[in-house]
Amino acid sequence: MSSVMPLKIALAQLNFAVADIKGNTAKILDAVEQAKRQQADVILFPELCVTAYPPEDLLLREDFIRQAQQAVDHIRQQVRGIDVVLGYPIAHGQWRYNAAVVIRDGAIIAEYHKQALPNYGVFDEHRYFKAGHQTCLFQAKGYHLALTICEDIWISGIIGKNREAGADIILSLNASPFHAGKMQERENIVCRQIKEAGIPLVYVNQIGGQDELVFDGASFVADSKGEIVFRAAEFEEQLSIVEFIGKEPQASTVAPLYRPVVSEYKALVLGIKDYVRKNGFPGAILGLSGGIDSALVLALAVDALGPDNVEVVMMPSRYTQDMSNEDAKREANALGVKYHIIPIEPAVTAFGGMLAPIFTGSPSDTTEENIQARCRGILLMAFSNKQGKLLLTTGNKSEMSVGYSTLYGDMAGGFAPLKDVSKLLVYKLAEYRNTLSPVIPQRVITRPPSAELAPGQKDEDSLPPYAVLDPILALYIEQDKSAEEIVAMGYPMADVKRAIMLVDRNEYKRRQSPPGIRITPRAFGRDRRYPISSAYRGASNLVEE
Amino acid sequence: MSSVMPLKIALAQLNFAVADIKGNTAKILDAVEQAKRQQADVILFPELCVTAYPPEDLLLREDFIRQAQQAVDHIRQQVRGIDVVLGYPIAHGQWRYNAAVVIRDGAIIAEYHKQALPNYGVFDEHRYFKAGHQTCLFQAKGYHLALTICEDIWISGIIGKNREAGADIILSLNASPFHAGKMQERENIVCRQIKEAGIPLVYVNQIGGQDELVFDGASFVADSKGEIVFRAAEFEEQLSIVEFIGKEPQASTVAPLYRPVVSEYKALVLGIKDYVRKNGFPGAILGLSGGIDSALVLALAVDALGPDNVEVVMMPSRYTQDMSNEDAKREANALGVKYHIIPIEPAVTAFGGMLAPIFTGSPSDTTEENIQARCRGILLMAFSNKQGKLLLTTGNKSEMSVGYSTLYGDMAGGFAPLKDVSKLLVYKLAEYRNTLSPVIPQRVITRPPSAELAPGQKDEDSLPPYAVLDPILALYIEQDKSAEEIVAMGYPMADVKRAIMLVDRNEYKRRQSPPGIRITPRAFGRDRRYPISSAYRGASNLVEE
Repeated sequence: MSSVMPLKIALAQLNFAVADIKGNTAKILDAVEQAKRQQADVILFPELCVTAYPPEDLLLREDFIRQAQQAVDHIRQQVRGIDVVLGYPIAHGQWRYNAAVVIRDGAIIAEYHKQALPNYGVFDEHRYFKAGHQTCLFQAKGYHLALTICEDIWISGIIGKNREAGADIILSLNASPFHAGKMQERENIVCRQIKEAGIPLVYVNQIGGQDELVFDGASFVADSKGEIVFRAAEFEEQLSIVEFIGKEPQASTVAPLYRPVVSEYKALVLGIKDYVRKNGFPGAILGLSGGIDSALVLALAVDALGPDNVEVVMMPSRYTQDMSNEDAKREANALGVKYHIIPIEPAVTAFGGMLAPIFTGSPSDTTEENIQARCRGILLMAFSNKQGKLLLTTGNKSEMSVGYSTLYGDMAGGFAPLKDVSKLLVYKLAEYRNTLSPVIPQRVITRPPSAELAPGQKDEDSLPPYAVLDPILALYIEQDKSAEEIVAMGYPMADVKRAIMLVDRNEYKRRQSPPGIRITPRAFGRDRRYPISSAYRGASNLVEE
Repeated sequence: MSSVMPLKIALAQLNFAVADIKGNTAKILDAVEQAKRQQADVILFPELCVTAYPPEDLLLREDFIRQAQQAVDHIRQQVRGIDVVLGYPIAHGQWRYNAAVVIRDGAIIAEYHKQALPNYGVFDEHRYFKAGHQTCLFQAKGYHLALTICEDIWISGIIGKNREAGADIILSLNASPFHAGKMQERENIVCRQIKEAGIPLVYVNQIGGQDELVFDGASFVADSKGEIVFRAAEFEEQLSIVEFIGKEPQASTVAPLYRPVVSEYKALVLGIKDYVRKNGFPGAILGLSGGIDSALVLALAVDALGPDNVEVVMMPSRYTQDMSNEDAKREANALGVKYHIIPIEPAVTAFGGMLAPIFTGSPSDTTEENIQARCRGILLMAFSNKQGKLLLTTGNKSEMSVGYSTLYGDMAGGFAPLKDVSKLLVYKLAEYRNTLSPVIPQRVITRPPSAELAPGQKDEDSLPPYAVLDPILALYIEQDKSAEEIVAMGYPMADVKRAIMLVDRNEYKRRQSPPGIRITPRAFGRDRRYPISSAYRGASNLVEE
């Protein structure tokens, strides 16, 4: 250790917007000023904070890369009296790197290139970047600080190499997206390596929603024994300062980690809020049916946007039960949102008449059910078009998995908050929401789920009970388990067969669904890239006895 | 050269189906039998032929990898008396490789792992595979044959290394997707390297449509001077034999390459045919408006599926001109397809009445236009649902780029044949089709394009003329040119601004569009991954004088 001077490091856990280089730059400069006022020596920003993460194929545009470089040049010229560590995509000749630089008094004093490029799950970093292959240290007040970016510290070896190179502290710039339990996973993996290497670490993550991803923050500082001595709040912007004295960080506030249902609820609220805000919508609308899914989406939307920015439409048909209308009204009133009631009968009748000469003689089937759902889609989209508001769809992950939904009907809309939320989790989230204030009528939670597209229809007429279906879906979709393995775990063969057959067959529907918020380790988005034309039948080897 | 014995190599340019491991295996065994009957010594199949290319995230499933291995084990046990060179995904411990193996008399005598893994454009091979790092040669009748897979021979160095290792002939297994001019590009790049290394090459490519990709075949053999001595027909299954005597391949048939408009037409026909066939649809339907886009899609669909498997629906409104109805009927009759006429007025009127109490006082805008398009979408989807037929959308790439289309309206459908076809190319393809037989009424080609959603509406009221718009779009979307560069090329600033602004703003629509057939170097699919929530505005730096 070459220093006993105290060193103050500011952690800038901020909500950046993808490609808003101007706005992000202003946010960076503002945080730098705040950190300076608090006498910080170093301020650490998240991975690619100048462009926000992930800019996806914008990274292939030369003009975009140039704009990011100009922003960094501007920051470099503006800032004095503090070391600014930030991330951005840098070009050298034909190559681009996921880089971190250290700006000190008008100069770049260190430049690091991310070594471990994730190219799995939602990540495509080999598509954009060349991997670096060198550690990078800089000195501040006698401390040797090492730069690492996100995945780097998940790969064993890189922390150790920095230690060997003489690092006193590891700085880690991150854009690590949320899924339930991820914060714990992150800290466990990182702290194990930190402890092994015997070196403290400062971890900064961005927060905010970006299309299907939510970044949860939960930035932290661990000491050389791998103990967490500081943690920022999840899902909130926060500029924090942690002081190092000698080798170790001083104990500070450690915000608690939320339990899963709470973190999922908060992730969904932030995801909706940022999708609406970052895309400039004046508010959101949705169809409220009296069922549990739309009831939850309404509560989430109001918690994200406020009651004045949310509007609902109830569109009863001849199959809609009275309790559905009553419960929908009760929730709208409880949350204080404006509602409209438009019975869909006139449109359904018109289509029936128009198609009668051609369909005459053919029995009623899902065609007629879909027409109802699509009439609702047209009405909701008319509201959305007229007012410019975002239409939220209300389908959940269980439905999306098995295709229990109507394309251009209930799937019509710009954003699908529950796309990665299983039906069982929908209930848990609704119950959790009601503990904050009772807004979802209890009957909505307890009545058997129904699409109300045919007389007396219930989900369980077409699907295995959700208590059985949901775990099968999680095993098949999120964990790539085979049908045989799932049956061997004790699930009924007929249910496994039916669930898997439906998942396999409905890729075409998912491909046209709106983006939704990822809260599990594998959502239906960039995360799961399946062919539509595919002869794969996961359940084909199951032989019923 | 260790041999002067003649060596007969069979090139199996076949249409495999993704994940149809059983069907592909049967096809492989059948081709092997045919090749043996023709006294071939070696038969060469395309890259990953056992699973077909690209299986995408099915490659992450252990059961899928196991099934592919079982298929190869089965082939190994079945085949005698010929060397079978085929590709499949192989697992070794935790790693998967994009592999080629040589099967001889019940044994695997060589196993090669693809070294150059493409991870750009439509390719995600780093997501699935670990790269190999060794050349792999085997001997047959005294010849030393080197194995390479697709991208390998695009990377300089790998052919040379094989030459140094003593190879007499390079075998190349491919799954190289089509875009206009790709065949020429492929041969130019490969033959240049071949010539440099002074070694002949046998190139086998798969054919067939797979979701957004079409593989064009055009397998070839080049001699050591880089001259093409054999080429298989494009877009057709073909088992061919080329004989080597001493170092060189013997001259054989060289199928001509189609000129762009012809190859594009054939790619679209094959893409439609395979999407319908591989997904098991009994046929296709589409809305026929009397405009050029649906006129071309109908011709393509009939050429792909035959007139008995295609049905059209005409859905006139109060804004539909008589000539639209007349021309639509004339084409349907010329092609011999069944048609239905359903005026949309009753449904449009119903929605107008239902929304009147809420929209009263607000002026008519695109909301009302969209309702018309969506009523058509509901009717077409009702046909599709009732009959199980695939609904083809008719929008082109120019519309898809600028969002000149209605979500859940004319964008409703399972497959979008023209999704990567610019409006100008639509005209060229229509004119080409009419040279085969005159099926598209001339007036459809010559009248100014209109969506007919408002009185006297023309595309050019809302958009720059296509002769200006299309090149701007190609420069911005396919070549990543900046707005400034495009203006510097001489395009009017106002048109560049408007076009780019519309492209930037409409990502959300494209995200919900059905898959279509890629015929350019960059389509709207796996090829172009843009964020929806994005502050990037390509034209923001343009300053009007």
